[in-house]
Amino acid sequence: MPSFAIGVDLGGTNLRVAAVDDSGKLLEKVTSGTEVGKGRDQVINDMTTVILELAVKFQDAGKLAGIGVGVPGIIDRATGMLRESPNLPGWHDYPVRNEIEKRLNAPVVLENDANAAALGESWLGAARDHDSMCMLTLGTGVGGGIVLAGDVWRGMTGMAGELGHITVDPNGPPCGCGNRGCLEQYASATAITRMAKEAIADGSAPELERAAHANVEFSAKSVYQMAVQGDEPARAIFRKVGWALGIVVADLANIFNASIYVIGGGVSSSWEAFAPALLEEVRKRSFVYNATTPPDSSGKPGSTIVTRALLGSDAGLYGAARLGLVTAPAPSKTRA
Amino acid sequence: MPSFAIGVDLGGTNLRVAAVDDSGKLLEKVTSGTEVGKGRDQVINDMTTVILELAVKFQDAGKLAGIGVGVPGIIDRATGMLRESPNLPGWHDYPVRNEIEKRLNAPVVLENDANAAALGESWLGAARDHDSMCMLTLGTGVGGGIVLAGDVWRGMTGMAGELGHITVDPNGPPCGCGNRGCLEQYASATAITRMAKEAIADGSAPELERAAHANVEFSAKSVYQMAVQGDEPARAIFRKVGWALGIVVADLANIFNASIYVIGGGVSSSWEAFAPALLEEVRKRSFVYNATTPPDSSGKPGSTIVTRALLGSDAGLYGAARLGLVTAPAPSKTRA
Repeated sequence: MPSFAIGVDLGGTNLRVAAVDDSGKLLEKVTSGTEVGKGRDQVINDMTTVILELAVKFQDAGKLAGIGVGVPGIIDRATGMLRESPNLPGWHDYPVRNEIEKRLNAPVVLENDANAAALGESWLGAARDHDSMCMLTLGTGVGGGIVLAGDVWRGMTGMAGELGHITVDPNGPPCGCGNRGCLEQYASATAITRMAKEAIADGSAPELERAAHANVEFSAKSVYQMAVQGDEPARAIFRKVGWALGIVVADLANIFNASIYVIGGGVSSSWEAFAPALLEEVRKRSFVYNATTPPDSSGKPGSTIVTRALLGSDAGLYGAARLGLVTAPAPSKTRA
Repeated sequence: MPSFAIGVDLGGTNLRVAAVDDSGKLLEKVTSGTEVGKGRDQVINDMTTVILELAVKFQDAGKLAGIGVGVPGIIDRATGMLRESPNLPGWHDYPVRNEIEKRLNAPVVLENDANAAALGESWLGAARDHDSMCMLTLGTGVGGGIVLAGDVWRGMTGMAGELGHITVDPNGPPCGCGNRGCLEQYASATAITRMAKEAIADGSAPELERAAHANVEFSAKSVYQMAVQGDEPARAIFRKVGWALGIVVADLANIFNASIYVIGGGVSSSWEAFAPALLEEVRKRSFVYNATTPPDSSGKPGSTIVTRALLGSDAGLYGAARLGLVTAPAPSKTRA
């Protein structure tokens, strides 16, 4: 009997719920705005209402294998608590899993959104032919996910995979995590905007300055558009993004010797602007990458691949559904 | 029926062979000098002679479960070739495993020495109560080993765990691996000697200069002795060692969220000189470490531990024996 799962991607902006069958086929996806202002209980109500609607709608399509929910921030897998979430203010120490389970009267699997995205790309996206992978999700911050031998590596307390906080430059800009010079300070949308403002402030980027004045919504995307148009200060910012990503991907190649490293998230749509610097840096810095990547065959089996994500903003949704399909949920489960 | 294994640690200086039973008890250890000058065939002959002697001697002690051999350098697990080994000149692209198996007429398991050391500490040493760990072996270079859920993480081609080549400072000293500012350039015995010579050359370390002139064998150990005696330039060098180790352990904590990180190798005998800076840096830089390590309970279960190795130079030997016990050897085995 075929089965399907329901995956949820609870973002600070959008709430997305999908029914996905066990072959990875999307049965239906429901997207709505996350009404953070109405409070967390209302958001959970909205979510569970859609989950129940999809569960009923597809009850003849097969067995509902499970429900997976990806949430931004730091979760405690043992208790199902959301510890901290920059994108969901007011959700600090909120028992997300229990609140969802109470309304559904069914167990759910909770996962960090970056881990869910890695699992999604691993199941159906850029890494679908690979056993193990690391994914960097470049958004407002930089998330990370590690899939080893098919399963998300979660570590002792579910906090593994914080690849956005690998140190790029020990004397670099301070990061909200307490460290300095984290990848997130170079490769997030926030960092791109900051670097553009720095360049404007020191007078070295007149075109960026004009663009920033003309556009109240000046953002990383604006900087990318300037880079595409050939503006040198904007291009230099994306070379810095690539430089930092290259240092971290080189670290990851030396650590994991995985067959693929995937770059996703909104900023990855600027791939053309940062990829050359990224790949050059990885080649300069990782002998493991070089030993496994002949210059003329970067896509051959057995060689290490560094590539863009394929599922776009749906990666986390598919990953959450995957968790519903493969995980036997247990509300009080702890991981060693 | 009890069983035992034979472990081999083939170093550039010493060749050690041990019979170890399945409870981790050492039955016998044979240490001899590695006669590199006589050529690799002779070294392999010496090794296999001792292996066979031990196999015969303990044949009544149980079943010989297997033979594990740890070798320094980069090995190709699929073919059993030693690709490169700074400590075994002339062994480049030498089919170590086949040469050993030919003489023994039995399968052997080949492993990188730093991976073997990590497995040894994981089985019987500092990490014996832990499921997952990372180990840094500070010697002439800096080796690394990763044990996840009880098994060495080897990656796509067996090159995983090169933790000595994680970037500490992207503009740091050039490393033999092609990168700049690798951990190895700050925390190896070679790096400590280099930093002492740099301090002598710029005139800032008069006591180190005197010691270096007085001692033709001036080494990292000499610098450590000066640090213990309170010489400030020598102490500063070990603070730099700790700083670099702290950056990398913070990275590893953010990546793996493992319960323990173990520092071994000859340089780890200078633990007191570098550990304060190491622990301070980890605390400053890893929010995952901080979230799992309450200041008052660094040894409690559930908290992240950073500690010295316990097995000294025997870690790799025990790890090699462990491989003999747990691995089903297959000469043509490939790993995905």
